[in-house]
Amino acid sequence: MPKPPHNWGRWGDDDQQGALNLLTPATVLAALGAARDGRVVSLAMPIRGATSGPAPTTVPHLAGRPLPQHFMSVDGGDYAAGVRSDGARIADDALLLSPHGTTTHMDALCHMWAGEELYNGHPAARVRSYGATRLGIEHAAARGVVARGVLLDAAAHRGAARLEPADRIGAAELAEICARVGSEPGPGDVAVVRTGWPRAWAEDPALYRSGQPGLAADAGRWLAERDVVMVAMDNAAVQGLGADGRSAEDVDDDLHLTLLWRHGIHLAELLWLEELAEAAAAARRCDFLFIAVPLPIEGGTGSPINPLAVL
Amino acid sequence: MPKPPHNWGRWGDDDQQGALNLLTPATVLAALGAARDGRVVSLAMPIRGATSGPAPTTVPHLAGRPLPQHFMSVDGGDYAAGVRSDGARIADDALLLSPHGTTTHMDALCHMWAGEELYNGHPAARVRSYGATRLGIEHAAARGVVARGVLLDAAAHRGAARLEPADRIGAAELAEICARVGSEPGPGDVAVVRTGWPRAWAEDPALYRSGQPGLAADAGRWLAERDVVMVAMDNAAVQGLGADGRSAEDVDDDLHLTLLWRHGIHLAELLWLEELAEAAAAARRCDFLFIAVPLPIEGGTGSPINPLAVL
Amino acid sequence: MPKPPHNWGRWGDDDQQGALNLLTPATVLAALGAARDGRVVSLAMPIRGATSGPAPTTVPHLAGRPLPQHFMSVDGGDYAAGVRSDGARIADDALLLSPHGTTTHMDALCHMWAGEELYNGHPAARVRSYGATRLGIEHAAARGVVARGVLLDAAAHRGAARLEPADRIGAAELAEICARVGSEPGPGDVAVVRTGWPRAWAEDPALYRSGQPGLAADAGRWLAERDVVMVAMDNAAVQGLGADGRSAEDVDDDLHLTLLWRHGIHLAELLWLEELAEAAAAARRCDFLFIAVPLPIEGGTGSPINPLAVL
Amino acid sequence: MPKPPHNWGRWGDDDQQGALNLLTPATVLAALGAARDGRVVSLAMPIRGATSGPAPTTVPHLAGRPLPQHFMSVDGGDYAAGVRSDGARIADDALLLSPHGTTTHMDALCHMWAGEELYNGHPAARVRSYGATRLGIEHAAARGVVARGVLLDAAAHRGAARLEPADRIGAAELAEICARVGSEPGPGDVAVVRTGWPRAWAEDPALYRSGQPGLAADAGRWLAERDVVMVAMDNAAVQGLGADGRSAEDVDDDLHLTLLWRHGIHLAELLWLEELAEAAAAARRCDFLFIAVPLPIEGGTGSPINPLAVL
Repeated sequence: MPKPPHNWGRWGDDDQQGALNLLTPATVLAALGAARDGRVVSLAMPIRGATSGPAPTTVPHLAGRPLPQHFMSVDGGDYAAGVRSDGARIADDALLLSPHGTTTHMDALCHMWAGEELYNGHPAARVRSYGATRLGIEHAAARGVVARGVLLDAAAHRGAARLEPADRIGAAELAEICARVGSEPGPGDVAVVRTGWPRAWAEDPALYRSGQPGLAADAGRWLAERDVVMVAMDNAAVQGLGADGRSAEDVDDDLHLTLLWRHGIHLAELLWLEELAEAAAAARRCDFLFIAVPLPIEGGTGSPINPLAVL
Repeated sequence: MPKPPHNWGRWGDDDQQGALNLLTPATVLAALGAARDGRVVSLAMPIRGATSGPAPTTVPHLAGRPLPQHFMSVDGGDYAAGVRSDGARIADDALLLSPHGTTTHMDALCHMWAGEELYNGHPAARVRSYGATRLGIEHAAARGVVARGVLLDAAAHRGAARLEPADRIGAAELAEICARVGSEPGPGDVAVVRTGWPRAWAEDPALYRSGQPGLAADAGRWLAERDVVMVAMDNAAVQGLGADGRSAEDVDDDLHLTLLWRHGIHLAELLWLEELAEAAAAARRCDFLFIAVPLPIEGGTGSPINPLAVL
Repeated sequence: MPKPPHNWGRWGDDDQQGALNLLTPATVLAALGAARDGRVVSLAMPIRGATSGPAPTTVPHLAGRPLPQHFMSVDGGDYAAGVRSDGARIADDALLLSPHGTTTHMDALCHMWAGEELYNGHPAARVRSYGATRLGIEHAAARGVVARGVLLDAAAHRGAARLEPADRIGAAELAEICARVGSEPGPGDVAVVRTGWPRAWAEDPALYRSGQPGLAADAGRWLAERDVVMVAMDNAAVQGLGADGRSAEDVDDDLHLTLLWRHGIHLAELLWLEELAEAAAAARRCDFLFIAVPLPIEGGTGSPINPLAVL
Repeated sequence: MPKPPHNWGRWGDDDQQGALNLLTPATVLAALGAARDGRVVSLAMPIRGATSGPAPTTVPHLAGRPLPQHFMSVDGGDYAAGVRSDGARIADDALLLSPHGTTTHMDALCHMWAGEELYNGHPAARVRSYGATRLGIEHAAARGVVARGVLLDAAAHRGAARLEPADRIGAAELAEICARVGSEPGPGDVAVVRTGWPRAWAEDPALYRSGQPGLAADAGRWLAERDVVMVAMDNAAVQGLGADGRSAEDVDDDLHLTLLWRHGIHLAELLWLEELAEAAAAARRCDFLFIAVPLPIEGGTGSPINPLAVL
């Protein structure tokens, strides 16, 4: 094989894959078996360009984050306005995206840390203006996440359409949910935790920004003990947020640090789980084939994803 | 369910899905069975920010296209330079991308047409500066492409590492390749056609830009007759390109018009198929589970993708 | 002279300069004489990148507009983090800007119109996705605006620090202000009208967004009759805005249409006039040398500017 | 005055203005007197969006730099395609720009340095991913550059339309040019040095990229001794460049370090001086009013400018 444009040697490095190392061919094959009726559900929120017009933005996102900008560089309007073409006509576009806090995405292992070292002892000083030369999202892109997903529906467990901003989901509650559905996430699985929080945006964007429900610190440790490869949630930060938009957890209890930094467990945030929750409830199942394929953005701190559940 | 941030009603419209309508739950389940050993291979080229430094760009792309720009808005260098943090540290970034011609991507059905109507009679005048309100890539994102993939390795068939710029792959040649491997793409499948052309970039970017091999007009019709849902290739435009960077085909024979516009067959371009080709040859197989999940960019003319082959 | 990169022939076209045609060499020389003590005051608000952090944005702007994004592609943090360099070190950056509504800027003559024709009968259909091929801001950039400026301080006239959102400045009030200061804008001058409205942002961004004071329809006609080349203001839209962020004027009375479209008078918006107002009051003068130099963005609908007053 | 959106206190700091401190009101008034006939000439190259189409880029720039991208977010084509509007119609756009190497621009004092300190001892570690908190271009924007310009036409001096790539302009040659025209740049002046190199692009972009003529090291020292506030040139880097796109000068002789870093003299690059050269020759004058007004990009390493010469 010729020298490829990517550095496969580096991308495949076990020491930069984190928990994704658990996704062996055998695990992947087993995960495919978790799909039973073949129905595919997208777990992504739309990427809506916030470029023109004073209309309030209609997709949940964190305050103060730069929203996606989508530009058409040529479109049907140009032909309507007189661009001449006897043959094929074309539409072309560009997208500017800062994934964290704005759209459904997956965090790279370089996204958060404490002190001078990233996950697995990689030096934080290698995360520079031209990108992270360690633990960038391209490593996760080398194989993607093809795994068994287990839905832990905390809102349904509490009998609510959605959690309240101050709600925190603890380890005991996760265990109760698993006991009730008779299935628990294990090594190589993706834990998909539903808070129902995106519903708050439709009620009132100000409500959405008044705080966010999320996992409690012990829930992070409980999940890490189970060797999941990813925690995917419909809130913005896995952990809960206060009215100031920040997490109240200290370094020991911060969910990003517990999962991403200490255990190399990837995080996916801002998912849309409403349709999956309905389908899973109707099918009386909580597991399925989960697919998330980050883009190989070299040195990227994350990637937008369109996660799929195949029921 | 509350009003979701996306317009599911529109996204699920059968008249905007094109050939993806063939991906029924039964087809999806059957496709999962095409994975036999669980090995996952990424078919994407890296997304490499072309922002700093005079170094020649190292990822194949078409001349004159705006390259990806990747910016870090906070990184490890900032902490090295003295940003104070007792707790969690963070790296954050932004990506600007014009997918066509620059990176592995999938075309939306609104990407090309002739005359006043898009595929399926949708008015081309609905493709405007704020995005396509018909046939945008978000429709394909509603379910993604989870299908059986069939590798048609035209380079290997000719006993070459890669095709030459003037080579065109005809319908008869595709039939020969299928006969040799004993498998033919059918309804609901993805035809993955390898030219080996990305190797030319490593030889010399100027060679890469001197033209491109691709499908002949009758090969497009042959594939359309087989009701594939997608044609995925490692060249830039499915069809071949001349030294001027353009296709020589007229409207009747243009591959984009035949596949995308007349038949609603999605196209994926600029894939990296070298590793897949080696693995498929070693396993003496040409089919596999193919996964491509475009981002739900509302009104988008395409989406970057990281296609996966699960062997 | 060799063929220059710009199309000077077009840029210099009298029929694309609008009122700037009044800026003859003699007018420019006379304007230079309006500077008497040589003190330079910038009339721009800062361009502040809204990229990182949840901090509320601190520069006045219209709701729903995409804010400037400023990215460093290499910086001092990278060297602190270990980038090696024995010689010169460098910092480099990129800026994304949508000038209207977000920062001090100047409108091109193609920015607004009614019906099928732009100012001076140019076809609106020539304003396309790849830029305006008529009346783009590059035409104004060919000579810039070097003119006499006359400050009409409506806030001071009413004895207020700033106007109220519902205040509209009429023609009679402009005449009164001129009578009081003993100077009136005439042919070739720039009318600089102060409302003090940017002060509202510092009071409360919500107040700023509750509406905006501006010119009344007859004030636009009064200014047009005086043959000014530009109207420069510290509000967002020259005309006033309601709580919905829109102007209540109909086509006949819309200030943009009266000034920009009917008379080819350029508009500058979102200026910062507080320091100028103090200096002018202290010097008991209302005229000065006004300089605004738009960037030659080909086909641009406007340009950020940093207007200078030389007192 | 209320708290303004900018931090005037910092912007006006004498220790961040460099040589611009020489631009006192008296100097500015004197500079205005250098305009004698009032003719205005723009010294900028156009900013041409490199977004669509495979056409070779037509504006001189350095290889490997990200070109300007200009997007229309609404335009006349949209109305032609059916956007309804009974009233005012609008065109709106966005611009992405990395000024260095791509367009006529001015360097901030934070743009280059050696070791750990910027100009005037400011710590280089304050130049971070969110911008330079010392010596950003906003400091130069506080007053702009309104100064006497002196044209030193090295190409004309050698009787050539343009210099050759290997040509270096030494201190002796600058002295000769001044002697011939009977005028020498002095304290507070802008030295405008013409190489004619942009003509090379029209001959052949490859020629343009084969190297660049520029100042020799002793010419930088000669200019610094004369206390100019800015050196403005039509090449890309003030100093000459080799075929590798780099300067051959060491730290002691590097022109950016001599002028920008050691003496706080701002640099402007990629100007278009052909028209000015003709006009100055015709008028048998080499001095004029020079105006350059950078945008107040907070923390910016430079700004696009449209410099004006008023003859």
